[in-house]
Amino acid sequence: MGEPGSLSPVTTTGGPGREEAPLRRPPQLAVLVEGGDRKGLLHDMTAAILRHGGDILSVEIVERGVRSAVYWELDAVRDPESLERAFLAIDVVASVSRLPSMFQVYGKRIIVVGAGAQVGQVAIGAIGEADRHNIRGEKISVDTIPVVGEENLANAARAVARLPRAVALVLAGSLMGGEVTEAVDQVRARGILVVSLNMAGSVPAHADLVVTDPVQAGVMTVMAVASTARFDIERIRGRRF
Amino acid sequence: MGEPGSLSPVTTTGGPGREEAPLRRPPQLAVLVEGGDRKGLLHDMTAAILRHGGDILSVEIVERGVRSAVYWELDAVRDPESLERAFLAIDVVASVSRLPSMFQVYGKRIIVVGAGAQVGQVAIGAIGEADRHNIRGEKISVDTIPVVGEENLANAARAVARLPRAVALVLAGSLMGGEVTEAVDQVRARGILVVSLNMAGSVPAHADLVVTDPVQAGVMTVMAVASTARFDIERIRGRRF
Repeated sequence: MGEPGSLSPVTTTGGPGREEAPLRRPPQLAVLVEGGDRKGLLHDMTAAILRHGGDILSVEIVERGVRSAVYWELDAVRDPESLERAFLAIDVVASVSRLPSMFQVYGKRIIVVGAGAQVGQVAIGAIGEADRHNIRGEKISVDTIPVVGEENLANAARAVARLPRAVALVLAGSLMGGEVTEAVDQVRARGILVVSLNMAGSVPAHADLVVTDPVQAGVMTVMAVASTARFDIERIRGRRF
Repeated sequence: MGEPGSLSPVTTTGGPGREEAPLRRPPQLAVLVEGGDRKGLLHDMTAAILRHGGDILSVEIVERGVRSAVYWELDAVRDPESLERAFLAIDVVASVSRLPSMFQVYGKRIIVVGAGAQVGQVAIGAIGEADRHNIRGEKISVDTIPVVGEENLANAARAVARLPRAVALVLAGSLMGGEVTEAVDQVRARGILVVSLNMAGSVPAHADLVVTDPVQAGVMTVMAVASTARFDIERIRGRRF
């Protein structure tokens, strides 16, 4: 589990025609706004954010109904204290608290999708390696779902592009192709690194990297995305291990 | 890995004084709105949603800058086709696509937090058991982060309440107390099931369930949250295995 190779992490070395995926750094401001609830509350909050020049990166409705709790991640807010006062000036809002952002707490996410047996082994490798990097100041999460069937797999692969902080996808199974391969092409075009186990079907030929041993696949994926690792995906893209 | 006990999954049996956590079911509408980007775009979209009576459950900014891609999960929209037309009527919006919701794709989330060695073993148990339930129509994800230090652990535990679709937290380490125990009380009050390994510190005494073997802890947590399992957390709450 050493760190050979050189230099830059994968997120700064996307190949030609690939976009940098968004939200791979901490936002300027992460706030939880709590109080009562009513129709139009979120619209009033976006109005306050707009008046302060803010860019909305993410919104999570933590609680709604009788009470409300809305978690915002924002950038480019001109005067954060003034925005907090503007939130508090909304009739039903009772409190505003600054929180560590999800990026600070959970960091980059590696998503492992496939069959239970292989997903578990990839997770073991990725979690063990993420532990070593997280101790040195990285933050890497390893998120998994065991699913069955081409449509479920393709949906799980495709939706990685919509998951906040996702940087890599590992496909862990014995046979994947068709719609799953289309999903691989789509998420790679969004700047997500795709690692495939050595398996039947057309997915391996479309992945950035093919790794036979699932534990090694988990370890290598973490190394490729960790800024604490010296491992350049460009030097090994397209190879099989 | 059988399913003993009886009846209802944990999410319907929260004890006295505990809230039902939100967003544990599919939203009415999940749409991706794509096009150009500019200041105020999100505010214009929330105005359209408000005019259609919609409740915003979640917003993810998938892409921004030159192009924009905003993923909405909504409820209570009176006329979804009319809302789609209203989105398309915004100057920079080019396309609106309905997508499977994150709940349909990744389902309920179990979050495993702690030290790499134990987190990996809990993941093995949880992923293996989730595989069995997902084959029968459930959707359960197992999301993990290996972290070190009381503050990091407490932040990771506390933020589970802000994670979409999170239903359970497993604390997997050798010693946890102090701030982490406060975080356990806070997330339990939000309706999150907390399972602890048998470890030193005050966390086990505050958890819903204490399990010595990490693989078994992962399996039991999945059984407790799976609607395909017959396992009633109320019958074993506070016990140690």
